[in-house]
Amino acid sequence: MVFTLIEVKKKKLTNPILIEGLPGIGNVGKIAADFMIDSLNAQKIIEIHSYNFPHAVLIDEDNLVQLPVIEIYYKHVGKHDLIFLIGDIQPIDEESSYEFCEVLLKFLKSVKCKEIITLGGIGLHQIPNSPKVFVTGNDKKAISSFNGKNISKETYNVVGPIVGVTGLLIGLSIRWGIPGVALLGETYGHPQYLGIKGAREIIMILNKRYGMNLQLKELNSEISNIEKEISSKLKQLGPVKSPKKWSPSETSYIG
Amino acid sequence: MVFTLIEVKKKKLTNPILIEGLPGIGNVGKIAADFMIDSLNAQKIIEIHSYNFPHAVLIDEDNLVQLPVIEIYYKHVGKHDLIFLIGDIQPIDEESSYEFCEVLLKFLKSVKCKEIITLGGIGLHQIPNSPKVFVTGNDKKAISSFNGKNISKETYNVVGPIVGVTGLLIGLSIRWGIPGVALLGETYGHPQYLGIKGAREIIMILNKRYGMNLQLKELNSEISNIEKEISSKLKQLGPVKSPKKWSPSETSYIG
Amino acid sequence: MVFTLIEVKKKKLTNPILIEGLPGIGNVGKIAADFMIDSLNAQKIIEIHSYNFPHAVLIDEDNLVQLPVIEIYYKHVGKHDLIFLIGDIQPIDEESSYEFCEVLLKFLKSVKCKEIITLGGIGLHQIPNSPKVFVTGNDKKAISSFNGKNISKETYNVVGPIVGVTGLLIGLSIRWGIPGVALLGETYGHPQYLGIKGAREIIMILNKRYGMNLQLKELNSEISNIEKEISSKLKQLGPVKSPKKWSPSETSYIG
Amino acid sequence: MVFTLIEVKKKKLTNPILIEGLPGIGNVGKIAADFMIDSLNAQKIIEIHSYNFPHAVLIDEDNLVQLPVIEIYYKHVGKHDLIFLIGDIQPIDEESSYEFCEVLLKFLKSVKCKEIITLGGIGLHQIPNSPKVFVTGNDKKAISSFNGKNISKETYNVVGPIVGVTGLLIGLSIRWGIPGVALLGETYGHPQYLGIKGAREIIMILNKRYGMNLQLKELNSEISNIEKEISSKLKQLGPVKSPKKWSPSETSYIG
Repeated sequence: MVFTLIEVKKKKLTNPILIEGLPGIGNVGKIAADFMIDSLNAQKIIEIHSYNFPHAVLIDEDNLVQLPVIEIYYKHVGKHDLIFLIGDIQPIDEESSYEFCEVLLKFLKSVKCKEIITLGGIGLHQIPNSPKVFVTGNDKKAISSFNGKNISKETYNVVGPIVGVTGLLIGLSIRWGIPGVALLGETYGHPQYLGIKGAREIIMILNKRYGMNLQLKELNSEISNIEKEISSKLKQLGPVKSPKKWSPSETSYIG
Repeated sequence: MVFTLIEVKKKKLTNPILIEGLPGIGNVGKIAADFMIDSLNAQKIIEIHSYNFPHAVLIDEDNLVQLPVIEIYYKHVGKHDLIFLIGDIQPIDEESSYEFCEVLLKFLKSVKCKEIITLGGIGLHQIPNSPKVFVTGNDKKAISSFNGKNISKETYNVVGPIVGVTGLLIGLSIRWGIPGVALLGETYGHPQYLGIKGAREIIMILNKRYGMNLQLKELNSEISNIEKEISSKLKQLGPVKSPKKWSPSETSYIG
Repeated sequence: MVFTLIEVKKKKLTNPILIEGLPGIGNVGKIAADFMIDSLNAQKIIEIHSYNFPHAVLIDEDNLVQLPVIEIYYKHVGKHDLIFLIGDIQPIDEESSYEFCEVLLKFLKSVKCKEIITLGGIGLHQIPNSPKVFVTGNDKKAISSFNGKNISKETYNVVGPIVGVTGLLIGLSIRWGIPGVALLGETYGHPQYLGIKGAREIIMILNKRYGMNLQLKELNSEISNIEKEISSKLKQLGPVKSPKKWSPSETSYIG
Repeated sequence: MVFTLIEVKKKKLTNPILIEGLPGIGNVGKIAADFMIDSLNAQKIIEIHSYNFPHAVLIDEDNLVQLPVIEIYYKHVGKHDLIFLIGDIQPIDEESSYEFCEVLLKFLKSVKCKEIITLGGIGLHQIPNSPKVFVTGNDKKAISSFNGKNISKETYNVVGPIVGVTGLLIGLSIRWGIPGVALLGETYGHPQYLGIKGAREIIMILNKRYGMNLQLKELNSEISNIEKEISSKLKQLGPVKSPKKWSPSETSYIG
């Protein structure tokens, strides 16, 4: 099991903050991260390749085939070096998901990463009008620094297992001494629904937190483009293998 | 494939008896073991970590994420050093289930474990009014020491394959010279049904056997709390991967 | 991936013939092999253990748990040293199925095995009144030595892929210089149907071929016992993982 | 994970062009490649064996069992050394698909392979009257050399992920300095539909490109034979594991 990090652009990072947005429920995290990268004009600095990604190629805007890849983008924003982890896929199974996170954490430790923010969705049984963002993580102080009217930090018995890199990364990062937080936006749990609204809530939280100065007016039209792009790529991939669906806790049960 | 045992509290064990209660059919074993640990105020002495556990994190009572973990708790009761093996998960596949049991058995041998009791459920097609407990194992003498009105030791052609750690542990332990017994409580085989009643029967058997002096009056209300907790954790995990369902033998067949 | 052969009884074999009867479609091969072992009072000489067998235990006639095991039995019959390969399971996946066969073939080569006969079923869409036995293999001469009114050697375009050890063993044995033949008895393809009739046809062919002198009058009552035993064991295992169903070729298709 | 290339006939290749036609959607690529090999009377030069192929044997025209194998055939046509990669199967999972492609690419590099053409199908929701062939690849120049009335090179947002060897081979070959193109013929997405028409379009494109001088009048009757042969082999294999279905992009989505 090998994950190869290729530095496509040399960049000296200073205590960076990682924002993760790989595919998952409603692609909430992916939509949010892709939008921020586009809007901030972040630069690709690293590509991660592996045989433990899906055995398929996707077609890019140039009508050329591309192997599955996970990428890291960089942008200095205000006082922060932000790096974004994005891609069209997750590692293919349980063990490769753990291995991927460890390889990544080794890298993050080497660049003195200050904090990890993973982004994801929570699939509801209906479309939420005003999606909440649930905040959990591995560090009480880090969690408590997130506040706002749509934010909920009461996640026990409400938020189910956080599957794939979004969960594992912050489950493992505490061992590397890196605090980690997950922002989980509510969305509709239908496999083909794109969690734009949940992503928007997450973007607004991070925009404010890091002073990204995102043009929120453009957000709707930008998001509509990203929506189209992701829709064409991800819906064709069929159900993504690793990040299984999870649903919020229900207190009823048979018995 | 690596399973790491971390000693979180030093404890000199004297010929301990292991009681296993990992997730399975109706979570009968898990409910019983979790109740005994709570009631006895047993102490956590060991954590087991692995990349061969599910690639997800769960949220604990402090609203913090936790990696999947299997734990060993300790309590001296009457004449016995009891240790309990519990957790929210099982190893992810066949081979890792074997490996896990061997790692555990090596540890148990090193502490001169005297006996292994694994707990599980048997899924019926309807809710049992008065669930029986089936007793099987790898040692006739050990099996014969279990007696009572709801106990059945006629398991051949009645009890199907015992899947996962509950079965493998006693299948393998005989090679390590450790007698092993499985207590299997009847329950309803519906995937979301919690086998409280079957667990209660098992608890009463072990309470008497080891002189645990459990306050049986509290059992109902305690169980109701555990019920809630397990319900919120495990139902969200979806169908547990390793321990597949099995059903009691039927003598009819087509042909 | 390790398969351990344990010699439970020393036996000098002279150019033995292997007859394989592991679980599969309708358990035709298993029923036939189990019957011959019982009737001939063959002796167990070898046990094969592995972590690449299912992670479960079964309950035996003594109400004790047993790990999955594949066994080799021996009986000298007329001019032949017959050895039988039987068990309740197959290796769990593709790669372990290949590995198992290679380990076995190495052993068979070491004892100068003269011929391999694998037994299996062909699942029809209805119960056959008078099941045929299809004969194929890796050696024309070996195949041509099987003759009789219910035997068909026209298998191309009629018999589908032969999955699991029954197929692989004779696919691989030619490389070891051991001729191999598969006898495939027609049966009903329903997952819970036991292919007694197809097994009976195979038994009669081998009875005559090797002069087993089986009491065919007892066959019906004996088979009824085996039927009961296998039914109780195998139906509880649920769908056996490795040997997938196959169906005879159909010439119609959409298009 | 081992893939063994066995040279069954010595042949000095001069800058060969590889044409791949393994099983996949509608078996479009397989049908096209098998037809060209038959019509050109190409010679088998290499066999590839592996434990990472399905664990089953197929029955050949001589009524003998054969292990799954992937083969390379050779024919000098006009100015080109053409080699064809064909077989009844694909490697069993994601990682073995990558490994297979790398082993093959190492070989192709060693013989100074000039170009790779992979063949596949695109499953529509209905039978296409006049199937188009979509052309994509890893090299703009190579793609632009394909022209014709049924050819479309606008694949972005239209063609989904290309799964298995057909996709990976050209995804990976660019790293080895070998340009690669995929020709994907439209077909009906039903699992048992054979994509003869889509294959015919691909054959006509390659016939013209390489001056194969195929007797197109014979094509219909020849194809009917191949149709029968593939139908009998592949339909019995059940759903091929590796190359999952993909569907052309749809612009509609929920949300």
